[in-house]
Amino acid sequence: MSEFETNARNRVQRVPKRGVYDREMIYGIVDAALIGHVSFVIEGQPFVIPTLIAREGDRLLLHGASSSRLMRHAAAGAPLAVAVTHVDGLVLARSVFHHSVNYRSAVLFGRGSAVEEREAKLAALRQFTERLVPGRWADAREPNETELRATAVIAMPIDSASAKVRSGPPGDDEADCALPVWAGVLPLLQGWGPPQRDALLAEDVTLPGYLAALLERSPQQRK
Amino acid sequence: MSEFETNARNRVQRVPKRGVYDREMIYGIVDAALIGHVSFVIEGQPFVIPTLIAREGDRLLLHGASSSRLMRHAAAGAPLAVAVTHVDGLVLARSVFHHSVNYRSAVLFGRGSAVEEREAKLAALRQFTERLVPGRWADAREPNETELRATAVIAMPIDSASAKVRSGPPGDDEADCALPVWAGVLPLLQGWGPPQRDALLAEDVTLPGYLAALLERSPQQRK
Repeated sequence: MSEFETNARNRVQRVPKRGVYDREMIYGIVDAALIGHVSFVIEGQPFVIPTLIAREGDRLLLHGASSSRLMRHAAAGAPLAVAVTHVDGLVLARSVFHHSVNYRSAVLFGRGSAVEEREAKLAALRQFTERLVPGRWADAREPNETELRATAVIAMPIDSASAKVRSGPPGDDEADCALPVWAGVLPLLQGWGPPQRDALLAEDVTLPGYLAALLERSPQQRK
Repeated sequence: MSEFETNARNRVQRVPKRGVYDREMIYGIVDAALIGHVSFVIEGQPFVIPTLIAREGDRLLLHGASSSRLMRHAAAGAPLAVAVTHVDGLVLARSVFHHSVNYRSAVLFGRGSAVEEREAKLAALRQFTERLVPGRWADAREPNETELRATAVIAMPIDSASAKVRSGPPGDDEADCALPVWAGVLPLLQGWGPPQRDALLAEDVTLPGYLAALLERSPQQRK
């Protein structure tokens, strides 16, 4: 896979050695995330909204209520920046200064447009559902025409992107390494808790195999 | 505590019943988070960057390298929007349309300014450290003058804010409730993994009590 060209918009400025422009690595960070934070501008004022994301090739898909501010603004082709972030742990150094966070984060830039055509819209919604819970689309009731109209889908070609990754132990100054201060990493883990059945569910509807399989994986291994 | 006044900037437009303007609830969402996503605008282009946050009364504190784009831009008083998001679970409905996410999210608006005065800067850094790991500041080596100069602290008075919360079971249409499709919530949990000692740490430096205590709490109960 190729690299994203670096420019003033996507270049990692602080700690350039942590900067990543490789498409495959960036897409891996995106695909492992449940949500992204979409930033946009209205009359000079920044806004930022968390939302589910899905990637399809070199496009990022967003969806939401047709009437939402983000959907209307994104459909109009406004510039967007989308951050996708995983916090992997707290890095405790001997010095306050070298305390840090282990993380994988990506920022994608582009302009969106509405996906209007019925089959393309259905395909995008299928992608959202299957990405989060593989096997779900075939089980759940598909959207009807009213529901499809109420749902906006935005496709944003990923024009530019970069990622930043920190991992590993603290980077204390050599002079501090003999200090009697505990140093290391507190890993932050995510996991699925026990599924909570809807109270209205008939007793004979048991947990399907695809959900049992999902619960055995971590939330970052959904594929 | 009071409510934030609603206006075009902070009003929750989609599903208004999920909108929260109560200061105490919004601050609870902020205080339970490790990071926020800070959005800002440069020449019409939106940017969004994940960063550690800390709250002190009605001000949000940010910090970073003095040379970073975000810090320089925020110090100049540019308008900022900061999102703080917790994903609590996936909501699986019988219909694709009613699939959702349980979450608590807040967005804070304001303009930042640099905290320059030495004692105020130290107090802010102490707040960052103690908020994440209570007891750490007294243990770790305090920043020296060079490190203090290399670190920028931004205080953003919270001019406006809102939160949005979804919890509970799926909201399927009544007509769908008899469908034989498993419905309910998959809770998403966060937890600390086993601490990873720095390889350079002397053997007689054991895990301090304040870290052992932290590991017994969930990452969202740090106070």
